[in-house]
Amino acid sequence: MSNAVEEFNAYRSKMNDKILADNNKIIKRIFNLDTNAFTAGALDVKTKELLGLVASTVLRCDDCVKYHLESCYKEGLTKEEVMETLSIATLIGGTIVIPHLRRAYEYWETLETTQG
Amino acid sequence: MSNAVEEFNAYRSKMNDKILADNNKIIKRIFNLDTNAFTAGALDVKTKELLGLVASTVLRCDDCVKYHLESCYKEGLTKEEVMETLSIATLIGGTIVIPHLRRAYEYWETLETTQG
Amino acid sequence: MSNAVEEFNAYRSKMNDKILADNNKIIKRIFNLDTNAFTAGALDVKTKELLGLVASTVLRCDDCVKYHLESCYKEGLTKEEVMETLSIATLIGGTIVIPHLRRAYEYWETLETTQG
Amino acid sequence: MSNAVEEFNAYRSKMNDKILADNNKIIKRIFNLDTNAFTAGALDVKTKELLGLVASTVLRCDDCVKYHLESCYKEGLTKEEVMETLSIATLIGGTIVIPHLRRAYEYWETLETTQG
Amino acid sequence: MSNAVEEFNAYRSKMNDKILADNNKIIKRIFNLDTNAFTAGALDVKTKELLGLVASTVLRCDDCVKYHLESCYKEGLTKEEVMETLSIATLIGGTIVIPHLRRAYEYWETLETTQG
Amino acid sequence: MSNAVEEFNAYRSKMNDKILADNNKIIKRIFNLDTNAFTAGALDVKTKELLGLVASTVLRCDDCVKYHLESCYKEGLTKEEVMETLSIATLIGGTIVIPHLRRAYEYWETLETTQG
Repeated sequence: MSNAVEEFNAYRSKMNDKILADNNKIIKRIFNLDTNAFTAGALDVKTKELLGLVASTVLRCDDCVKYHLESCYKEGLTKEEVMETLSIATLIGGTIVIPHLRRAYEYWETLETTQG
Repeated sequence: MSNAVEEFNAYRSKMNDKILADNNKIIKRIFNLDTNAFTAGALDVKTKELLGLVASTVLRCDDCVKYHLESCYKEGLTKEEVMETLSIATLIGGTIVIPHLRRAYEYWETLETTQG
Repeated sequence: MSNAVEEFNAYRSKMNDKILADNNKIIKRIFNLDTNAFTAGALDVKTKELLGLVASTVLRCDDCVKYHLESCYKEGLTKEEVMETLSIATLIGGTIVIPHLRRAYEYWETLETTQG
Repeated sequence: MSNAVEEFNAYRSKMNDKILADNNKIIKRIFNLDTNAFTAGALDVKTKELLGLVASTVLRCDDCVKYHLESCYKEGLTKEEVMETLSIATLIGGTIVIPHLRRAYEYWETLETTQG
Repeated sequence: MSNAVEEFNAYRSKMNDKILADNNKIIKRIFNLDTNAFTAGALDVKTKELLGLVASTVLRCDDCVKYHLESCYKEGLTKEEVMETLSIATLIGGTIVIPHLRRAYEYWETLETTQG
Repeated sequence: MSNAVEEFNAYRSKMNDKILADNNKIIKRIFNLDTNAFTAGALDVKTKELLGLVASTVLRCDDCVKYHLESCYKEGLTKEEVMETLSIATLIGGTIVIPHLRRAYEYWETLETTQG
């Protein structure tokens, strides 16, 4: 049975496939970098995912937030760590971040409920 | 019977309650400040709500705009005052504000129709 | 039968008519400028529409992107030209632009399928 | 003897004159709207200047902040009213506004010291 | 004798060299993409430089504006074409773009005076 | 002998003192939160400083970047960790982040040279 996480991922995959099939070199390389940037390096994957989460949140990109929330969840980051990251985002980015915080919180709940 | 104003407020309340129940100190204090900042001081409440409205609009935060529109409506600000505020937002923030102006206008109509 | 393009245009027209009927001078003139700015001048209309598209995309305004995509389509710009413009937007604006790129790509497909 | 206010205004005037002499119709009309939007209407000039100030501050445009601070000063707005406006900007826009708050505060001091 | 264009380019080159010498793979590839994205493709170089200029201007990045202004100048774009691009940026991005327009205008003058 | 770090800190302290002396309650509490948010909690101080750095960088706030760079330096974070954080910021925020990356890199060098 479908849920918000699966719907988001299905749309994301479908459109990414179409865009990449188009063979625009710049876009393909950016997508590629996006994968590489979050692999372990001087910083571990968990820290990098929190960096991706806080940056997405202050830039108020709901889809980017969802993407990083799922990665955080899969990496085993706790709700407390995620909430502390979101609280820093709300302080730095201001109260205009709050609507995104609400949606992020709801998405995290869905991850906890559905991703086992 | 439910309408856009009630739906928005219900979701907002439900999620705010969950977030605040989590006891993240930074977030709780920001929520608290958000209430305090719009009480009367050197400036009256009406002026402050217009400040909140124009700031939310140039930052293109639809939910923040809705929130301040409802407060403006409850404070008895007129449509002309609200539209003048939104026109300044559109000039300062540019034509990318226009889609938000359309949604703001529609929400104000709903407030006038449903909030008696 | 209705589609995403028609729905977008219908809502846009309906709300623009209401807003303009209100006679706020600043808003009327900004709407007017918006029409004038994209007519041929030192630059031709095609180039100007691509400028509108790239600016809307880096500013992450989905409705503005849709509007300029339709104008690009009507002006006979090719998918390759539009994608190259969107790739520059994604590079300059960063990976937070990607969710808007997905929606832009989908809208272009709808334009190709439905606008004959 | 020159100070920060005079230097800012001299540069602003010199460049505005050059830009307007160029006769780009769109730019001329935007400059014109910028003057009209802040004249008295449904809202008085003081309120409009505070709207301009808060919008400029959350958008983190130092030169726009300076411009509106000087107008606020000339309109007789008090430091308390200006600071309350800036505090709302800092709350809505977040701690990234703070560097702009520091420069705004310094500019207001210069206005008080030099503009008699 | 040094001028604003040479100073900007010297600092830019010096820091780019240092950053690239550090061998951070993500940053190196982004710098690389930045060069590739503005070469001729479905769109010619002139059009792409105007796209870069308008995107940089609405995002209010003075250094990015300077960089694209110099490329526009070298590609033989006229002042009228550049100003039309900047007027679209000011309309889309709003009056907060004006301070950047002033600095762009001044930089174009320096390019005309010093770059022969 | 004065350097870029000392100058930045001196101006910052001087203006913060003046602003806080003014007793605007909202601003005082935001300054206070800014201190609390970066103390150890579910996340350690190092991670939080990197979160502050990446958020400041994608929001293109040079002064905020400087502030967090100094804290990172004092916490013993390595240049590699800082550069990896900045590379994620440049990818997420796009090439408009690059001018801020150059200034961040230069400031880190000054920290290494002058802060012993």
